[in-house]
Amino acid sequence: MAVNLPLPNKDELKPIKGLKLGIAEAGIKRANRKDVLVIRLVPGSNVSGVFTQNRFCAAPVQLCRAHLLERNPIEALIINTGNANAGTGNEGLRRAQQTCDALAHALGISAEQVLPFSTGVILEPLPVEKIITAIPKAITALKEDDWYAAAEAIMTTDTQPKAASLTIQTSTGPIVMTGISKGAGMIQPNMATMLGFIGTDLSINVDLLQELTREAADLSFNAITIDGDTSTNDSFIVMATGQSPVRIQNKSDPSYSAFREGLISLSRQLAQMIVRDGEGATKFMTIRVKGGRNSAECKRIAKSIAHSPLVKTAFFASDPNLGRILAAIGYAGVDDLDSTKVQLWLGDVWVARDGGRNPEYKEADGQAVMKQAEITVTVDLGRGSVEETVWTCDLSHEYVSINADYRS
Amino acid sequence: MAVNLPLPNKDELKPIKGLKLGIAEAGIKRANRKDVLVIRLVPGSNVSGVFTQNRFCAAPVQLCRAHLLERNPIEALIINTGNANAGTGNEGLRRAQQTCDALAHALGISAEQVLPFSTGVILEPLPVEKIITAIPKAITALKEDDWYAAAEAIMTTDTQPKAASLTIQTSTGPIVMTGISKGAGMIQPNMATMLGFIGTDLSINVDLLQELTREAADLSFNAITIDGDTSTNDSFIVMATGQSPVRIQNKSDPSYSAFREGLISLSRQLAQMIVRDGEGATKFMTIRVKGGRNSAECKRIAKSIAHSPLVKTAFFASDPNLGRILAAIGYAGVDDLDSTKVQLWLGDVWVARDGGRNPEYKEADGQAVMKQAEITVTVDLGRGSVEETVWTCDLSHEYVSINADYRS
Repeated sequence: MAVNLPLPNKDELKPIKGLKLGIAEAGIKRANRKDVLVIRLVPGSNVSGVFTQNRFCAAPVQLCRAHLLERNPIEALIINTGNANAGTGNEGLRRAQQTCDALAHALGISAEQVLPFSTGVILEPLPVEKIITAIPKAITALKEDDWYAAAEAIMTTDTQPKAASLTIQTSTGPIVMTGISKGAGMIQPNMATMLGFIGTDLSINVDLLQELTREAADLSFNAITIDGDTSTNDSFIVMATGQSPVRIQNKSDPSYSAFREGLISLSRQLAQMIVRDGEGATKFMTIRVKGGRNSAECKRIAKSIAHSPLVKTAFFASDPNLGRILAAIGYAGVDDLDSTKVQLWLGDVWVARDGGRNPEYKEADGQAVMKQAEITVTVDLGRGSVEETVWTCDLSHEYVSINADYRS
Repeated sequence: MAVNLPLPNKDELKPIKGLKLGIAEAGIKRANRKDVLVIRLVPGSNVSGVFTQNRFCAAPVQLCRAHLLERNPIEALIINTGNANAGTGNEGLRRAQQTCDALAHALGISAEQVLPFSTGVILEPLPVEKIITAIPKAITALKEDDWYAAAEAIMTTDTQPKAASLTIQTSTGPIVMTGISKGAGMIQPNMATMLGFIGTDLSINVDLLQELTREAADLSFNAITIDGDTSTNDSFIVMATGQSPVRIQNKSDPSYSAFREGLISLSRQLAQMIVRDGEGATKFMTIRVKGGRNSAECKRIAKSIAHSPLVKTAFFASDPNLGRILAAIGYAGVDDLDSTKVQLWLGDVWVARDGGRNPEYKEADGQAVMKQAEITVTVDLGRGSVEETVWTCDLSHEYVSINADYRS
């Protein structure tokens, strides 16, 4: 039921020089399913990451943070699906460590140079032996041109793989970027495990890469979540192999802005693919909140709308029951909001004027917009000049079915 | 699909001396439906109220606040269903005022002595003429013994009327209390219009009554909401007619504790009835969070669990996918929570010990609890001695159907 989400075109997914991908079937949750992905990076690559803030953050997330914080030269990543290794306590940490140890040993690097990722069911022990057994197969399979299969290997309840490439021309040569992502339940994506990985051949200073990764995450993956990056396993990783002639050392480098824009654009594409493939999604909604005093209040209101089950079911039903949007604005927690200054548009249709129903609004006009598969909701708070955008999907019967049956 | 919610027994709903109820059919949204309720109070009654904090609070809520704040001697209430008169701007205020004017004129009191309430669809103009036409009929129908019909008259998507009575024996005589309530969508009840009205024959100081009303609301109606009392129309009203020989002037009065406990108990009954009749509910869940440092963090975590769609769909499916509960604890926003101190029980089954799966936990035990219609989830945060409880229901296919079809 994905909304306007074509399958990635294999030929358009560009290999990244210095980055190889290897897939294996470990049989973690089901047999005959690609469920382990190893990414091998050329020495000298720089890697940055943004992770969940959940207090029950998964064991692999804890190891990733530690390994990046210690500024280890990361040379490999390992991702498994079928089990999140979250809510698993010290034993979970030990198993994530065993996974790193096994991959490091097989590659002849140290365990601190490995970043581990897991996604799947929470509170169940990671079948680490299955993963360790699959590692040699994944290593044998390593090749540069395998992003499509990599995107397939990280899927859980996703209905299709998510991947995209981008080439940016700069004065010193092209930068190639390819990324993959996965999502899951979208009604509260802070509970979904969202994973995003982007590889690029650029050479870039690691601090700058980390700063850009945070910025790109805020404008993409974090703009499709409710409460910030708060699942147990959410991770977004950017890997720069340094194999391109293009080098960026600081913000004054001529290629900096082009790379920044490209990274944000690719991150948004990958994040929006997650929304388009949201569990049971039939509509793709863009929630724009402008006229705010600051970014925080715009995001807060946009997310309040984006995550109201009543708003989402109205979109599912194509019912312009738009008072539900006003209510969601009102309870978002912006305490000094003056409701009489608020304007609301559905597509181009001006629905609420100065906090009340626009006298010229006709329900037939609202109805026409509601029937579309892609809908933009615009709110003007009338109290400033800041704007933020959030993307979401509707809430359908299919969502309940998927989540009621997830483990069966 | 209500969960263990028997119809109120008409004979057990006690009339309150000095309080009369009158019902009429105004045809606001549909013909042949009781949709207007007038409550007439004997002069000298004291009335207190707690209202939504939503910035788009409905026009009638604004008038109620003003009339109570001015300490007008309230003598009448008027409640309509079928239209919330919210998101209706100044015209909405004018129409709420017209409703008060009409009732006041008919009763020979002033408009400031009337409290108006509306519930139903948002953003549509209140059909005030229909209400005004119905007022004389409601007044003609006024009688003390009509609580059951009153409970029916305030229903929207409720599947059945909600009402209960309580008689408290004190040294100076009995206090009789009768209340009614209504709910709606329960997944984010901050969007539902919850109305609760309790009448009692007690004579009580108005400041003390207001304080007790706030306290009772926090322990009942506010314990079934996410973000506090934040719909556009939520209202909880206590009316004391002063017709009983029992008088309470301050907290040292011997009947004070008995009345306080009775009020909390009746409020909880009425609030829990709303959960039991939650849209599409098939399970009634009690979420107890103990071992907290303060009330705020316990409530925050309880509500985070109670409102996670992934948790709610797991309960609907009777699937002990309990990692979802840990994730909801983790993203509740208690930033310094130590997950290794957290314990989780499902009913009497100890599921998570010290933040990880309890080695002795067997899924069959969790499964047995999940199959029950009433389930208690207990979380121990292991960092203090405060405890809070929240009540909620599951998320079913029926919820989506009801909310996708609400206006059709």
